[in-house]
Amino acid sequence: MRKVGIIGLGHVGATVALDIVQGGFADELVLIDKNPEIARAEVFDLWDSLALQPYHVKIYAGDYHDLRDADVVLSTLGHIDAIKPGGDRFTELRLNAPEVKQVSDDLNASGFSGILIATTNPNDVIVEMYSHYLNLSQSRILGTGTYLDTARMKRQVAGHLNLDPRCVEGYALGEHGNSQFVAWSTVRVAGRLFSEIAKEKGLNLDAIEEDSRQGGFAVFNTKHYTNVAIAAATVGLMNLVLSDAKSSAICSHYDPQFNSYISTPALIGKNGVEGLIELPLTADEKVKLQASADEIQNKIKLFS
Amino acid sequence: MRKVGIIGLGHVGATVALDIVQGGFADELVLIDKNPEIARAEVFDLWDSLALQPYHVKIYAGDYHDLRDADVVLSTLGHIDAIKPGGDRFTELRLNAPEVKQVSDDLNASGFSGILIATTNPNDVIVEMYSHYLNLSQSRILGTGTYLDTARMKRQVAGHLNLDPRCVEGYALGEHGNSQFVAWSTVRVAGRLFSEIAKEKGLNLDAIEEDSRQGGFAVFNTKHYTNVAIAAATVGLMNLVLSDAKSSAICSHYDPQFNSYISTPALIGKNGVEGLIELPLTADEKVKLQASADEIQNKIKLFS
Amino acid sequence: MRKVGIIGLGHVGATVALDIVQGGFADELVLIDKNPEIARAEVFDLWDSLALQPYHVKIYAGDYHDLRDADVVLSTLGHIDAIKPGGDRFTELRLNAPEVKQVSDDLNASGFSGILIATTNPNDVIVEMYSHYLNLSQSRILGTGTYLDTARMKRQVAGHLNLDPRCVEGYALGEHGNSQFVAWSTVRVAGRLFSEIAKEKGLNLDAIEEDSRQGGFAVFNTKHYTNVAIAAATVGLMNLVLSDAKSSAICSHYDPQFNSYISTPALIGKNGVEGLIELPLTADEKVKLQASADEIQNKIKLFS
Amino acid sequence: MRKVGIIGLGHVGATVALDIVQGGFADELVLIDKNPEIARAEVFDLWDSLALQPYHVKIYAGDYHDLRDADVVLSTLGHIDAIKPGGDRFTELRLNAPEVKQVSDDLNASGFSGILIATTNPNDVIVEMYSHYLNLSQSRILGTGTYLDTARMKRQVAGHLNLDPRCVEGYALGEHGNSQFVAWSTVRVAGRLFSEIAKEKGLNLDAIEEDSRQGGFAVFNTKHYTNVAIAAATVGLMNLVLSDAKSSAICSHYDPQFNSYISTPALIGKNGVEGLIELPLTADEKVKLQASADEIQNKIKLFS
Repeated sequence: MRKVGIIGLGHVGATVALDIVQGGFADELVLIDKNPEIARAEVFDLWDSLALQPYHVKIYAGDYHDLRDADVVLSTLGHIDAIKPGGDRFTELRLNAPEVKQVSDDLNASGFSGILIATTNPNDVIVEMYSHYLNLSQSRILGTGTYLDTARMKRQVAGHLNLDPRCVEGYALGEHGNSQFVAWSTVRVAGRLFSEIAKEKGLNLDAIEEDSRQGGFAVFNTKHYTNVAIAAATVGLMNLVLSDAKSSAICSHYDPQFNSYISTPALIGKNGVEGLIELPLTADEKVKLQASADEIQNKIKLFS
Repeated sequence: MRKVGIIGLGHVGATVALDIVQGGFADELVLIDKNPEIARAEVFDLWDSLALQPYHVKIYAGDYHDLRDADVVLSTLGHIDAIKPGGDRFTELRLNAPEVKQVSDDLNASGFSGILIATTNPNDVIVEMYSHYLNLSQSRILGTGTYLDTARMKRQVAGHLNLDPRCVEGYALGEHGNSQFVAWSTVRVAGRLFSEIAKEKGLNLDAIEEDSRQGGFAVFNTKHYTNVAIAAATVGLMNLVLSDAKSSAICSHYDPQFNSYISTPALIGKNGVEGLIELPLTADEKVKLQASADEIQNKIKLFS
Repeated sequence: MRKVGIIGLGHVGATVALDIVQGGFADELVLIDKNPEIARAEVFDLWDSLALQPYHVKIYAGDYHDLRDADVVLSTLGHIDAIKPGGDRFTELRLNAPEVKQVSDDLNASGFSGILIATTNPNDVIVEMYSHYLNLSQSRILGTGTYLDTARMKRQVAGHLNLDPRCVEGYALGEHGNSQFVAWSTVRVAGRLFSEIAKEKGLNLDAIEEDSRQGGFAVFNTKHYTNVAIAAATVGLMNLVLSDAKSSAICSHYDPQFNSYISTPALIGKNGVEGLIELPLTADEKVKLQASADEIQNKIKLFS
Repeated sequence: MRKVGIIGLGHVGATVALDIVQGGFADELVLIDKNPEIARAEVFDLWDSLALQPYHVKIYAGDYHDLRDADVVLSTLGHIDAIKPGGDRFTELRLNAPEVKQVSDDLNASGFSGILIATTNPNDVIVEMYSHYLNLSQSRILGTGTYLDTARMKRQVAGHLNLDPRCVEGYALGEHGNSQFVAWSTVRVAGRLFSEIAKEKGLNLDAIEEDSRQGGFAVFNTKHYTNVAIAAATVGLMNLVLSDAKSSAICSHYDPQFNSYISTPALIGKNGVEGLIELPLTADEKVKLQASADEIQNKIKLFS
């Protein structure tokens, strides 16, 4: 049976829980928040829906001891309320860092040996912290990273062509933050390079890239949080682990080439990252990826 | 193609939109809020998820003109933030009533001729208002009513027996408010009357009924809103209409026996309420149901 | 991870495999047939669909050794081709019995310790055989029994009222064979006894019961097999086990009251039958249930 | 509401019906077979499952008159039983052609104006026939074509790398028959050209292509039909139409470049083919595609 823990029941954690219950994507779901009342309130709301759901899921507000045999733990904690409109994900680090340390200590004490997937921001710094603190090999720790930014890029590209975003292939790479970039050499629409299509149609790649990068803020500035797309990305990544899919996904993982956690495509299965995927990039893209890795490391150093 | 409109993008409306998109339950989804920025922010978050969803849904922030040919419109507007902990759903009426009038005028102007399903509270009063204002026959206007309270009752009953809530049958009837009651003569677990099981096990029916009635507040007092279960109820009801299910469901609808909107089981299909269902009730339950209908009418008179 | 084995890849086994893959209801699916070519052909057809499926499932043609750690094994073997139109499920016993013995020996040798669910007919006799041969406690062996006949009864009842079959509650009890019967005292439509509705509308309960009982043959006489509904019943039961639903379901299980496998409602969870459910029956229904149990035992004695 | 007709209830049609009902992909489903008994038997089996399905679908054995307002009609008729192991899809043409003429006449008489999607073989010849006979514009007639062969190619490529087939991009192009070919310049695994990976790993592209092309026969030679993957392809294509997805899909459609129906990627929405997609191909691939178009036209001429 598939046992999943969610740590942090803000908007993202709560939406992830909802997605899992509606899809029947776990058999046992443990909700944990530093404020146990919050976890309990979400459990009650989910329980109230169980008579109406197609699948049975055992849901409860638990503690770290319950995560000992969890297959996947999702770190969805955060302090997005601390970010001012137009701000940077890095603002949260000061608040999230001590909680990540505490969660790691508690997970270590529980004996947890599954896969940790974090949405907590700044994502690449946070997964590196988890990797530092947790008694888990690096390959068992993932961040959603630019999985979300890649989905945003696909939406932007598809929007300019009035197409289903699911026909866009390609990647936003690097930091889940300002130094990320769209690797246009990888972006294809139904098999054709989007950069060529854009040239024909007079579309500005830089503007599209900036819209992808700022996509979260377009939502955040009004809603004061984002939840739908980040939850979909988290659950998508979780399902690849739980079904041992051996599928490629873009996520933040340890990449020995940069000696850093950073988002490039990786092979995901029940053991987390089961293989690295070498993406053919242009020289310019390689420079940008190195710069983004450097930027992640600079942020980490600031906090070491 | 299934076209659905959502009016009011607070927590309930946004969660309903999410449920619809994840389940592929509509082909075209129009989001409207009195604050267009809010609708747009939700649309952006949903768009950002489209590359990750299994189904394609056309989603946009629209206006009432776009609802002319909608199959179903969901009224999810509300002012739950105006309710104080421990409060009554009736507190919202003063704020919701003028908006319901405006929405009705705008829907009438659009030529909308589909089915309206409201979650707006106080639910029975609100659907009666919609019925008064809208150019639609009474049978085309529904409220989620005690669909949600019934799900909460099933959870409470199942919880005492450590069972899946889906094996509990029966109904919470009357007002989606304090005068509602559990019709224990209808509540069965795997074919057996729960009242007998409760007697054997020394369970207190009144306490269980009170927990069902107050279930929303157990969530609300901490989260300051409820969304998961009410959204599941709304989408469940909507799916019965969209698939012309000819299925029985408990919801707030016009019941000529009481000359009032009130929750009793009804037959739901593409035309809304397509038939009334006569539920065998005890004399005591009949008295309670009449009293609950009176309570709804009293509230309506206060505001006429 | 959820590991499921299917033994017997005729129409039922193949359709069960299809349902599981489309629904993402297992993470690992092992197909076994006495003719390995058949299992391999189904695996190839399923593999050809994997790029088009929403979920990843690991599928392979295996042997009994692969079932050692399976959570559920489904016995879908059968010789329906041996039944002549209008025939009795008992005709198959002569052919199925030695295969059930062999499957049991092979499962025992594998060390399988999960739950076995059989669709093989005559179902109650077959599950008793499995119980005799397998190194598993009685509660870990289930037959689909009258789960299917109950669904057929709901369809027949709903059809006479032009309703969604999902609003019908109640049970067909006893043997998955000619001695089964509809316990009309349990059959309700939206909370009301169907027997009363039938009286009002002049519907003949006996004729409806006979249509339910013969429902399989109405399909079989033309298609020469049935697969859709029996597969849905099998997968439904399997999902209750895999999600540890603690849900009531009607299925063939060991009932100490009759010292026989027979279909009455039972509480289903990860350990198979986790509790018996006492159904309030009329005196007449109790007599019919005992008679059906006797019939099952008579058939078993014929073959002992 | 989404209304779909299925014409031809052999293994493919029956499996398509099952997929649609399980997924809730239509609200009204009309089954038609030249042998009405066959359609009725499938309807009965589907009805028997309705109490167990998550969604309501109105299903019935209809006649052509019922298809007047269908959104999509699926031509799944065929005579696969006439093909000998190792045979060619063309063998069926002699038997299928007069039925296609009759179906077209009946659809024209009904006033059907939706989208026709055919799985009937030889697929490209059959859709050209439908286009000749039906009172529908060419863009409203599609064949599953190499949608299926493309899925088979993805499985073969993924199988050699022990990966999820969903991470393979690219196309099998041309005839759904022996002249089809894999356009290796379009085949990428997680962004990297598979031809390069194959070179590194010493994999033989020609052998993989031949396995893709012969994938159906590997199933057919044992099962005597294929149904799972072709049904998944059909339903996938249908869902793009019903949801107006504006998504690219590989299917057999009229391509003015070749003045022929042939499989290349096309833009699919509620009007069928809503746009052509120019795929960058190598000179060698262009020659193969022209040759495949010629082969389709040769077959058509043989039968004109």
